[in-house]
Amino acid sequence: MPVFTRNEYLERIGKTKSMMQEKGIDVLVVSHPANLNYLTGYDGWSFYVHQCVLVSVDKEEPIWIGRGMDANGCRITSFLKNENIYEYADNYVQSLERHPMHFVADIIKKYGWANKTVGVEMDQFYFTAQSYVELQHSLPQAKFANGNALVNWVRVVKSPAELEMMRRAGQIAVKVMDAAKTHIRPGVRECDAASKIVEAQYAGTSEYGGDYPAIVPLMMAGEATKTPHLTWSDKPFKKDEAVLLELCGAYKHYHAPIARTIFLGENPPQLMKDTAKVVIDGLQKTLEWIKPGVTAEGIEAKWREAIAHSKIVKESRLGYSIGVNYPPDWGEHTISLRSGDKTVMQPNMAIHLIPGIWYDDVGFEIDASIYITETGYKAFYDYPIDIIYNK
Amino acid sequence: MPVFTRNEYLERIGKTKSMMQEKGIDVLVVSHPANLNYLTGYDGWSFYVHQCVLVSVDKEEPIWIGRGMDANGCRITSFLKNENIYEYADNYVQSLERHPMHFVADIIKKYGWANKTVGVEMDQFYFTAQSYVELQHSLPQAKFANGNALVNWVRVVKSPAELEMMRRAGQIAVKVMDAAKTHIRPGVRECDAASKIVEAQYAGTSEYGGDYPAIVPLMMAGEATKTPHLTWSDKPFKKDEAVLLELCGAYKHYHAPIARTIFLGENPPQLMKDTAKVVIDGLQKTLEWIKPGVTAEGIEAKWREAIAHSKIVKESRLGYSIGVNYPPDWGEHTISLRSGDKTVMQPNMAIHLIPGIWYDDVGFEIDASIYITETGYKAFYDYPIDIIYNK
Repeated sequence: MPVFTRNEYLERIGKTKSMMQEKGIDVLVVSHPANLNYLTGYDGWSFYVHQCVLVSVDKEEPIWIGRGMDANGCRITSFLKNENIYEYADNYVQSLERHPMHFVADIIKKYGWANKTVGVEMDQFYFTAQSYVELQHSLPQAKFANGNALVNWVRVVKSPAELEMMRRAGQIAVKVMDAAKTHIRPGVRECDAASKIVEAQYAGTSEYGGDYPAIVPLMMAGEATKTPHLTWSDKPFKKDEAVLLELCGAYKHYHAPIARTIFLGENPPQLMKDTAKVVIDGLQKTLEWIKPGVTAEGIEAKWREAIAHSKIVKESRLGYSIGVNYPPDWGEHTISLRSGDKTVMQPNMAIHLIPGIWYDDVGFEIDASIYITETGYKAFYDYPIDIIYNK
Repeated sequence: MPVFTRNEYLERIGKTKSMMQEKGIDVLVVSHPANLNYLTGYDGWSFYVHQCVLVSVDKEEPIWIGRGMDANGCRITSFLKNENIYEYADNYVQSLERHPMHFVADIIKKYGWANKTVGVEMDQFYFTAQSYVELQHSLPQAKFANGNALVNWVRVVKSPAELEMMRRAGQIAVKVMDAAKTHIRPGVRECDAASKIVEAQYAGTSEYGGDYPAIVPLMMAGEATKTPHLTWSDKPFKKDEAVLLELCGAYKHYHAPIARTIFLGENPPQLMKDTAKVVIDGLQKTLEWIKPGVTAEGIEAKWREAIAHSKIVKESRLGYSIGVNYPPDWGEHTISLRSGDKTVMQPNMAIHLIPGIWYDDVGFEIDASIYITETGYKAFYDYPIDIIYNK
């Protein structure tokens, strides 16, 4: 059973078709798992083989194309009619003779689209260089266009039903950070704490079962606080070390990321306290300023202004758009809060602000997962924006 | 700290260079996270942005190229000298003006390799169509060659140290399936069982902390047993339904997959009992036959012969090579147990045999994770090859 109504999927497909027409694309080959899910409801861990959804401007429903064994999964999870589900044989999988894009080209020919303009997601993982080469060879009459992030941009403004999924994800995020707070203690192995965090992620709340987030728990302790994106080891946490946490609650593949820093003692180094104060204060000043009409780069400029009195410089972007996603990223690959991104904030856009600091001598992370309202913003969860002290 | 010795990494790199020379490749752009890890030890969840390792036949150590914020992670986890770690600025990330492959091309030029034969992993996720186009545009003098799965094929024969990682993963796999057995009961929500399974995956054993497997727990109950690759819902399990489980133990990113079928009652339908008998018997006959010298397609033919007396036909491959991996797949994308794959089994190859059946009227899964020895095979874990009954 798909998560949303047939009407909601058709509305999303309608918006996709409008954007295709603006770009002169007749048929869009959608490869990103989050875009497959967004347009059809399809939800399976089958994205390690080639699969796609075809959206044509002159056909109401999209067409799902995947590996034979996954077609029943599509029948169960998507809203698509059976006639729009096509399966390729298993000897296309990781073969040196056959490529799944040959099969995709055959379907495109079958529908009479072989001489149309075919859009592909040029820079999305899951659409490989070989996919592009094979599709071009198999469709010599077609014109190819870059449809990269086209569906991602349709996803940028969330529907009320999507925001509800994200609020539920926010409720789960609170339980996830609470689990981290309970279990990250001196003497506990990092892997044991990670196991309790992920347990909270999957269990969710008594009302809303959790889902797997697009990124596993990220956990940097001690020396590793000078970098993001590491996972756990089997070493125990030590007294008086800091632990950076990038975690998330997820519901039906919708994300509410949550990042905090735990200090395992009572007296963090002065540099960490000072850094935390600047970052927290800067984040709060930035949040207060957010409302419809401001731009992505404006938000980042506000942040830079708010911390200008300090020595802190953040080279990397301040945040990005979030919503439905699959591994390897919960970021939407659309809006980036940084200089040059002139996207205007509109109600129902959802943003993750994460002013992470990873210096050689100090690391600190804190965040906010929010959406834009008619007058300002609302957070997906309410969790103290401060250092967590665990003695 | 990297997991293996510097010597072991250099040996892997040496084998990679030999294979590159056989294929006439001077410089290989390695994009697959498992290949990055295999060649350098690098281990971060940073593969949602472009990154790579360059292997040149005339340079001892590879070169790591990634996003600035991840360079410290490379310094911590890889064996590479600092001089071989290059970081691109954050405004290359998901930008419409700059692509990380421009930076990669600059490094290739800096080392004087711009007119060499550059190999790329054409059909690996994480090397996108855009990556290929940008690299070609930026290196007009270079010749491009397909280096797809080149490092994957180097990985096919495991070192003794790698097999030890996989045996530890096997110990974790047993705890993971035990957790499933304990928690999958009528009335328990699927998400709560999944949370206990993943808890066991990450915690591992008291000696060996677990890691995140490349695939989350797959769990198909009731109607969903006609398909693989689905995850959990928040519905409770029902009495007298079957549950298919594709799980895994992982240690330092090395995998020991484990799949079983639980029946939540005492009397499964006759069709399920009959199917299970044929599949289990066929798997065991196939295993007994495995030894060095037999081929991948020979193993699959043996399986077909062993079940020929029944009505069961398995269209999809019987299994594949396993080892170190990252999401979205623990399969190595090298050996497939199916007709046409003439790979000869050698000692220290590691294989996952998974004769899964997903018919409309019955589903059944069971597996074996093994490696080839001098005389036959050994399993990475010892777990009863049978239906699990949970009343």
